[in-house]
Amino acid sequence: MTTTGSDEPPRRRRGRPGYDQEAILRTAVELFNRKGYDATSMGDLAKELGLTKAAIYHHVTSKEQLLSRALDDALDELTATVTEALREREGATAYRRLREVVRHSVEVLVAHQPSVTLLLRVRGNSGVELAALERRRWLDDRLAALVADAVKEGALRDDVPPALVSRLLFGMVNSLVEWYRADGVYDPATVADTITTLAFDGLARHEA
Amino acid sequence: MTTTGSDEPPRRRRGRPGYDQEAILRTAVELFNRKGYDATSMGDLAKELGLTKAAIYHHVTSKEQLLSRALDDALDELTATVTEALREREGATAYRRLREVVRHSVEVLVAHQPSVTLLLRVRGNSGVELAALERRRWLDDRLAALVADAVKEGALRDDVPPALVSRLLFGMVNSLVEWYRADGVYDPATVADTITTLAFDGLARHEA
Repeated sequence: MTTTGSDEPPRRRRGRPGYDQEAILRTAVELFNRKGYDATSMGDLAKELGLTKAAIYHHVTSKEQLLSRALDDALDELTATVTEALREREGATAYRRLREVVRHSVEVLVAHQPSVTLLLRVRGNSGVELAALERRRWLDDRLAALVADAVKEGALRDDVPPALVSRLLFGMVNSLVEWYRADGVYDPATVADTITTLAFDGLARHEA
Repeated sequence: MTTTGSDEPPRRRRGRPGYDQEAILRTAVELFNRKGYDATSMGDLAKELGLTKAAIYHHVTSKEQLLSRALDDALDELTATVTEALREREGATAYRRLREVVRHSVEVLVAHQPSVTLLLRVRGNSGVELAALERRRWLDDRLAALVADAVKEGALRDDVPPALVSRLLFGMVNSLVEWYRADGVYDPATVADTITTLAFDGLARHEA
């Protein structure tokens, strides 16, 4: 609580703030999401940051390096979440682990919304994008297997195709990157509760 | 069944197929979805079609006109579906109309997948895009009101926020444009059945 001394890097105190890799990456991802990755040039990024292109190239080697880092940010978090859900633990049925991974995915999407948004729009137009799609496919396959396990153990209904259920369930989770606002009316816990209630318990009170 | 005479326009019979507006629009939408709208030039479109840019400008006035037509295609279909669901009919509760609009939305998404995909990626970067977002918002508001009506009539649970439920439910429906393949393993009826079962009846057999 002393007022002298600080661990803040000094350049952050200048009138004109310094730009580090993280700040450049953040702005780049925001631009990629707004204009599309292919339509965004390093010149656009420099303009948005108020820097010269040379100043940006001091921190990053290419536009693709920025894309790659953003996709890794999203994929590393999602992979950690799915890997944890796959870890078999005493008393943790596939059904319980599936409910958990839905909840944790919501948290990751909210905490890493810009990079996950970018990831979900990747079409495979380059080596970096194809590698990201391959990592996404691994995650999708693991989640589909978890749904299938929860059906096998008798916790989930077996009259709908498990692979299709998995796509729709995580399609619903992923859809929130398009509209969720951290400063909006719903906190992440409310979103996670609503998704799990809707998907597992259903909305209907009576059969029509 | 005669072999002489035909209503086909003659230019379709030439060795080199003629291009009409519809064919140009189809290819443009496919390119916009693959590369992003902002990153696609009329030169790219000409190259993809094997035409000169002048030949394309014989049929369309601008890239934005192609975007506008594609977005209208998607929005006109979705608006017709939602308007029909809003029409109060004898014996048709809000709950029944909500289930119907989910089913019909799946059919529209499958039948108009390229233009709906484009619509769902619109960010509001131009007047055409802002107008499309406004039409989308009108649809979203009507669907949210229908969910709220179904809650009010006692058919849907009231312990989750209706506006959030609407976003998630149609987020799940919309997610299928990202992975659905008309030549894949699931027909539209199976997708619609699975979505309505998941959302209204729930996946769980037992509470965990």
